[in-house]
Amino acid sequence: MEIDINCDMGESYGNFLIGNDDLLFPYISSCNIACGFHGGDPVHIERTIARALEYGLRIGAHPGYPDLAGFGRRKMHLPAHELKPIIKYQIAAIQGMARSMGATLAYVKPHGALYNTAAQDEREAVVILEAVREIDDQLALMGLAGSVMETCAAKYQVPFIAEGFADRRYTDKGLLVPRTEAHAVFDSATQAAEQVCLMVLEQQILSVSGTLVPLHVQSICVHGDTPHAAQFLQEIDSALQRAGIQRKRWHT
Amino acid sequence: MEIDINCDMGESYGNFLIGNDDLLFPYISSCNIACGFHGGDPVHIERTIARALEYGLRIGAHPGYPDLAGFGRRKMHLPAHELKPIIKYQIAAIQGMARSMGATLAYVKPHGALYNTAAQDEREAVVILEAVREIDDQLALMGLAGSVMETCAAKYQVPFIAEGFADRRYTDKGLLVPRTEAHAVFDSATQAAEQVCLMVLEQQILSVSGTLVPLHVQSICVHGDTPHAAQFLQEIDSALQRAGIQRKRWHT
Amino acid sequence: MEIDINCDMGESYGNFLIGNDDLLFPYISSCNIACGFHGGDPVHIERTIARALEYGLRIGAHPGYPDLAGFGRRKMHLPAHELKPIIKYQIAAIQGMARSMGATLAYVKPHGALYNTAAQDEREAVVILEAVREIDDQLALMGLAGSVMETCAAKYQVPFIAEGFADRRYTDKGLLVPRTEAHAVFDSATQAAEQVCLMVLEQQILSVSGTLVPLHVQSICVHGDTPHAAQFLQEIDSALQRAGIQRKRWHT
Amino acid sequence: MEIDINCDMGESYGNFLIGNDDLLFPYISSCNIACGFHGGDPVHIERTIARALEYGLRIGAHPGYPDLAGFGRRKMHLPAHELKPIIKYQIAAIQGMARSMGATLAYVKPHGALYNTAAQDEREAVVILEAVREIDDQLALMGLAGSVMETCAAKYQVPFIAEGFADRRYTDKGLLVPRTEAHAVFDSATQAAEQVCLMVLEQQILSVSGTLVPLHVQSICVHGDTPHAAQFLQEIDSALQRAGIQRKRWHT
Repeated sequence: MEIDINCDMGESYGNFLIGNDDLLFPYISSCNIACGFHGGDPVHIERTIARALEYGLRIGAHPGYPDLAGFGRRKMHLPAHELKPIIKYQIAAIQGMARSMGATLAYVKPHGALYNTAAQDEREAVVILEAVREIDDQLALMGLAGSVMETCAAKYQVPFIAEGFADRRYTDKGLLVPRTEAHAVFDSATQAAEQVCLMVLEQQILSVSGTLVPLHVQSICVHGDTPHAAQFLQEIDSALQRAGIQRKRWHT
Repeated sequence: MEIDINCDMGESYGNFLIGNDDLLFPYISSCNIACGFHGGDPVHIERTIARALEYGLRIGAHPGYPDLAGFGRRKMHLPAHELKPIIKYQIAAIQGMARSMGATLAYVKPHGALYNTAAQDEREAVVILEAVREIDDQLALMGLAGSVMETCAAKYQVPFIAEGFADRRYTDKGLLVPRTEAHAVFDSATQAAEQVCLMVLEQQILSVSGTLVPLHVQSICVHGDTPHAAQFLQEIDSALQRAGIQRKRWHT
Repeated sequence: MEIDINCDMGESYGNFLIGNDDLLFPYISSCNIACGFHGGDPVHIERTIARALEYGLRIGAHPGYPDLAGFGRRKMHLPAHELKPIIKYQIAAIQGMARSMGATLAYVKPHGALYNTAAQDEREAVVILEAVREIDDQLALMGLAGSVMETCAAKYQVPFIAEGFADRRYTDKGLLVPRTEAHAVFDSATQAAEQVCLMVLEQQILSVSGTLVPLHVQSICVHGDTPHAAQFLQEIDSALQRAGIQRKRWHT
Repeated sequence: MEIDINCDMGESYGNFLIGNDDLLFPYISSCNIACGFHGGDPVHIERTIARALEYGLRIGAHPGYPDLAGFGRRKMHLPAHELKPIIKYQIAAIQGMARSMGATLAYVKPHGALYNTAAQDEREAVVILEAVREIDDQLALMGLAGSVMETCAAKYQVPFIAEGFADRRYTDKGLLVPRTEAHAVFDSATQAAEQVCLMVLEQQILSVSGTLVPLHVQSICVHGDTPHAAQFLQEIDSALQRAGIQRKRWHT
């Protein structure tokens, strides 16, 4: 039994550092690389691809709204004819740089407000899917398990990687408890690790109301930009090992 | 007899428009597309590729220093390990977007201060050549005829497209008269057209001192961001036709 | 009888030019200066202040959302604790530069999507009013006649300059016909000039339904970023002169 | 006996955090606030001014080259007519925001490559001095003790605050050992604290060659963007207390 662990990486911009990427690489199997619009720049992108290669990680593009000041976390109202090239440009940049270094871009995972919008809004999900497919129809889309993105990807015949969140709590419907509510996030690495094991072993989660809810995930996202990200990852790693679950190895 | 006419295109940024691209497409054969760092954005890039396809133009990436405020015209001191990914990112973005639209990226032409530096400084030329070759060893580099870029491209076995300038005057050594000097630029479209015909028919130019100097060019650059760009292009077009020279047709 | 004519100026960014400001200065009396966030930069700001001084114009700050790529025309969802310093910073920058050149900042007029939001949304209007008042309680706010901004300004005891639009058509309620509808804009300078005269002489407009509607304005806005802006301004100027209305002279 | 301790603050940009400002405020007396061009944004600026007020700190503007991607550490070649408004804009923004919060801007300290250039290049120093004087002739300039900035400030009759660096080593001429050389920086907080005490008590430093060199400073700069900044400041604070030197108190 094995599971993919993904993390957002390469989000630093010049001298402005975000995340302790170097501490996280050893514990993940997929690496979502910021593309320079909400974070990231060509230098950090190149370094991140190099590290991903070194650790044998699967590589994804992590495009966001064009909003460095807001780190792509503010909803933007972009018409499809603007949003699509904005996403295509970002995927293309990462794919070309990866290819030039002997790496292969495997998937696309939207960032921040783009992710959240596409998880619920079919129009936004479709724009992303078209962007992905136009750049390369071999690319997968990674997104929230059970979301509009998942349904749309099926329709558009784009391979979908359903992800669950290690540190986010779920509703009875298998959706994320909004961050604005109390108990939205596990502060304890142990609880996060337990949720991950439950997701992987039983394909279900324990909702905030205490109900077991089915949730089918192919990858687990761990947030890398928190101060305790490395500790969470280590704890999850140990818990997985104890449970006899291997971290996915994409390249050996 | 035929000649390639190239022009910098797609340099507009959002609502900030530069150049009357739509008036120029009919008179050129190669289209250098800004990549979003000194000018251009994904929406303008996509539109420009679509137009280039429509007119059957050869497509080039036109990367510049990361300096929107200075339009890439200010010299920047970037170490090779920063400059190379900055150039690679830009080429990759254009190449991926072009490919997704059924177009093929054929060459790379550096912009502004990056172009001028690489024309004289071997170190900067080499960084560009490595970036080009790493992204795609089928890509050509377009640059100043007789410059350091041309010499280096030969060494690096990167195909080189030597270009001459329609409206710039030349020294006895076949180099450009610096813009800071008087008579650096032809204000008259007729004179520019005459220079182009001389370049194409005789592979030489008439220097500011009145000497005929050999200059081997495979493409003629016409500046597109001047108010009279369309008029210059029309005049050059007519002069070429009168002289029995055809504008190159890359795709038919 | 006299009237103030205002125009958005200084919106160029580096090499990216917007508007033919130099052709417009002679026909206006108030100058809304972009502050560098949706457009404008320190060099263009300084030039614009210098010209405003030369022509004896009243000077206003024209702050916008921090969105150069979208020219401040995209609605942004910024919480008050972010939006207020963003507006204060912009006003402060223009005021300090104006003061250093011997000019006085007289008012603030929000730009684009910020203007439109504040015209209808009390919360956004209040943030702007607080920003204005905190920077300098002598500053006036310029905004849409009859809008939420006008009502709120009264409550906050910030002097309000109600403006009407020369080229925009009005509903029976004295509000602007949305740009998405047909007949939202006068394409003819003559019609725009007629509307201006009606506004000034009768304090009313002729709505799209053909009804005379009262509208009290202290200033007329003419858009400066259209190709025919200069022609509109000249036509309005002539019409005002014929009607015996003087353009306001703030400094002589 | 007392001394001023200054630190660069408020350099974070949106979600991109630089420096542990909150840990440093208790140990400094002057606060150089980034102005939004090399770092900083209106929200971080406002927060930093609020904290400076809370701690009774003297407030300075910390303008830099317009280069967020390079954090203002890359030399830019800006002609005086561009650089001056760029600096004036930044000072004006900070001054206006400070004033609106009941604080007073006391001085200007250039950042990064702008600082280093002005320390040696009279032309750049003069542009800064003119910018400072035009915005407010009561403002002081803070800069490297013994530098071209100090000489020029005297000529321009702008009050000058000569600063020394706690953690940088000096040559026999009282200039900084370039960072490219070994031993340019003290890694030990103890040595930094010793150098500070020597500067304050004896107005001299011990150069790399072991010579005592006179150096007259009115302020000590401690770098805030290093991981151990807080520890350095604490150690310096303790050493000053042991030596009977008080940290300057500007507002009580």
